Amino acid sequence: MKKENLIAVCVMAGGIGERFWPLSRTMRPKQLLAITGERTMLRETIARHAGLSKPEDVYIITTKEQAGLIEKETAELPKGNVIPEPCGRNTAPCVALAAALLYAKDPESVMVVVSSDHHIPDSAAYRATIEDAIALARQEHVLVTIGVVPRYPETGYGYIKGGEEIAYPGKTKAMKVSRFLEKPPLAVAEELYKTPGVFWNAGMFVFNTKDILSAFERFMPESNPELKEIVRNAGKEGERAAIENYYRVVTKISIDNAVLEKADNVAVLAASFQWNDVGSWTSASSHWPEDGDGNRLKGEIKLLESEDCIVGNYHEGLVGVIGLKDVVVIRTGDAVLVCAKDKVQDVKKLLNGLDEKYR
Amino acid sequence: MKKENLIAVCVMAGGIGERFWPLSRTMRPKQLLAITGERTMLRETIARHAGLSKPEDVYIITTKEQAGLIEKETAELPKGNVIPEPCGRNTAPCVALAAALLYAKDPESVMVVVSSDHHIPDSAAYRATIEDAIALARQEHVLVTIGVVPRYPETGYGYIKGGEEIAYPGKTKAMKVSRFLEKPPLAVAEELYKTPGVFWNAGMFVFNTKDILSAFERFMPESNPELKEIVRNAGKEGERAAIENYYRVVTKISIDNAVLEKADNVAVLAASFQWNDVGSWTSASSHWPEDGDGNRLKGEIKLLESEDCIVGNYHEGLVGVIGLKDVVVIRTGDAVLVCAKDKVQDVKKLLNGLDEKYR
Repeated sequence: MKKENLIAVCVMAGGIGERFWPLSRTMRPKQLLAITGERTMLRETIARHAGLSKPEDVYIITTKEQAGLIEKETAELPKGNVIPEPCGRNTAPCVALAAALLYAKDPESVMVVVSSDHHIPDSAAYRATIEDAIALARQEHVLVTIGVVPRYPETGYGYIKGGEEIAYPGKTKAMKVSRFLEKPPLAVAEELYKTPGVFWNAGMFVFNTKDILSAFERFMPESNPELKEIVRNAGKEGERAAIENYYRVVTKISIDNAVLEKADNVAVLAASFQWNDVGSWTSASSHWPEDGDGNRLKGEIKLLESEDCIVGNYHEGLVGVIGLKDVVVIRTGDAVLVCAKDKVQDVKKLLNGLDEKYR
Repeated sequence: MKKENLIAVCVMAGGIGERFWPLSRTMRPKQLLAITGERTMLRETIARHAGLSKPEDVYIITTKEQAGLIEKETAELPKGNVIPEPCGRNTAPCVALAAALLYAKDPESVMVVVSSDHHIPDSAAYRATIEDAIALARQEHVLVTIGVVPRYPETGYGYIKGGEEIAYPGKTKAMKVSRFLEKPPLAVAEELYKTPGVFWNAGMFVFNTKDILSAFERFMPESNPELKEIVRNAGKEGERAAIENYYRVVTKISIDNAVLEKADNVAVLAASFQWNDVGSWTSASSHWPEDGDGNRLKGEIKLLESEDCIVGNYHEGLVGVIGLKDVVVIRTGDAVLVCAKDKVQDVKKLLNGLDEKYR
């Protein structure tokens, strides 16, 4: 790999994070919230890549609705680096769009595909893994997925089963992927958690742009002509029209289902850094201070005789809690959520039929 | 009783109602809140006496802090009818003060002493009982307490045991009081509830002012000279100084403990109207609409899979509740209370040590 080749970080930032209602809203999406630390999740994501890519090589793929907010939040990036998708089509078209634009800039470029709302406390360990992934992708022309060594039998993540080990110059163990597994029921998760060589699918990838474009050509041939039009028009007058056109024809599908589960050149790196996708108040609050009775608290709160609660007060004023166990309370300026801890996934249901102003 | 004699309604309105936090505050006391209906509890109390006394014969005894708020709330009353106590000294001095001022206006006057924060849905039944109480006090020169036939074994109320029946022209059964009983433990309450002739002590009284002043002379002799000074100065320049002076010397004690438990001319009327003292969110919410799953709801709320909850949303915006049972949620503009239903009495504890702005 020549040092001067482009290594681009592609941040997928199109979601709303409905499970973080009432803090998250259409115009206040999860990645623009300071859920895990002092900074927004998007800023934490960008900061995590300092030293790996220069700011001008960080791209953010988001929705038309959020593009303005995200440009404001990432003012240090060149304006063109925030790329609005014409509409949401899941992760495969999103990756394909970024790959096409980057390939046009540099056919030897590498793309690091990450989400804007994951929590990884140890940035140095993360970067070391990504550097190994780049080396692996470069040398072996594999599509690299980052697997995370499971810390408990999580049912909210997909899993990846590693196979034959791949020799390469990096320190992180690399394997060919033998199988992708969907989010499992608890009994299966408990089994997987104990099985060596099985990892959480962290939804983070490192690809040579030309390799992933080849994979799209093979596995999504019906939209490949339109994808090639993006390459041809990238950086030119016709770029936006080509993108619009691609999204008119492309299938709505995840990169896992569209490509990774089908291709035979997929590798997994066995990452051991701490990671979670901050999918709910339960996982988000695991980073908040704990009070000795199992309560996770953020903001101005007074608790009496309560344990194992999650209380987040995101607005001026007080939350008082008395005599509760395993209850989640989240307060913002215009709404309050009070929810049994084992029902946090049902917040999405609450939003159904809710007045637009609360969504 | 001559028709023209003064029948005054004396509303005791000095409390804050801490158990209604966060809705109640020092400067937004319970009696100025619309807890049970559309109107504030004070307005409901005054409306209940329409037809019994003219507005100019309704007096409100309150604190110095609340006097301004209460005057605003009761603008139809003559301004002098809102009487601020120099300091809180429980109910005996409050009744004595009102009795002294009324006696000075009319030595044959009758006073109806009520609280500003009780809920009585049937005003007509209430007035009929009070008219009987006035007749009884007039004819027998007894100090009349209103007893309410218990509807369940409440542990938050005191009880009154009736004795020998008193014959008088009214329809409501009247008895001499045989005993006052403090708030009982549950086992005792269950016993009392089943005992005929035992009533809830509703804290409402009807006295001839001269009879209650005689009782104060006998049972609180140490402050009686100062009380007589109020009578002497009532309506004159020295009135306020006399009141201040009385409160400097008088004992802090309830009318029950000071007089009624000691006097031998105390009667109880067996009232059968529905009554509660709206002492907590549990009792207050019993007047809110019920949703079919036992939830009592007030304001903009969305519930999922929840039962037997009490949710009061007193501010613009939404409260979402998921998967809870027997939880109380109260939201105001600057605070939220989330409390196990069997801990609503502990709200007072929560207020201890709380920043002044939240009290």
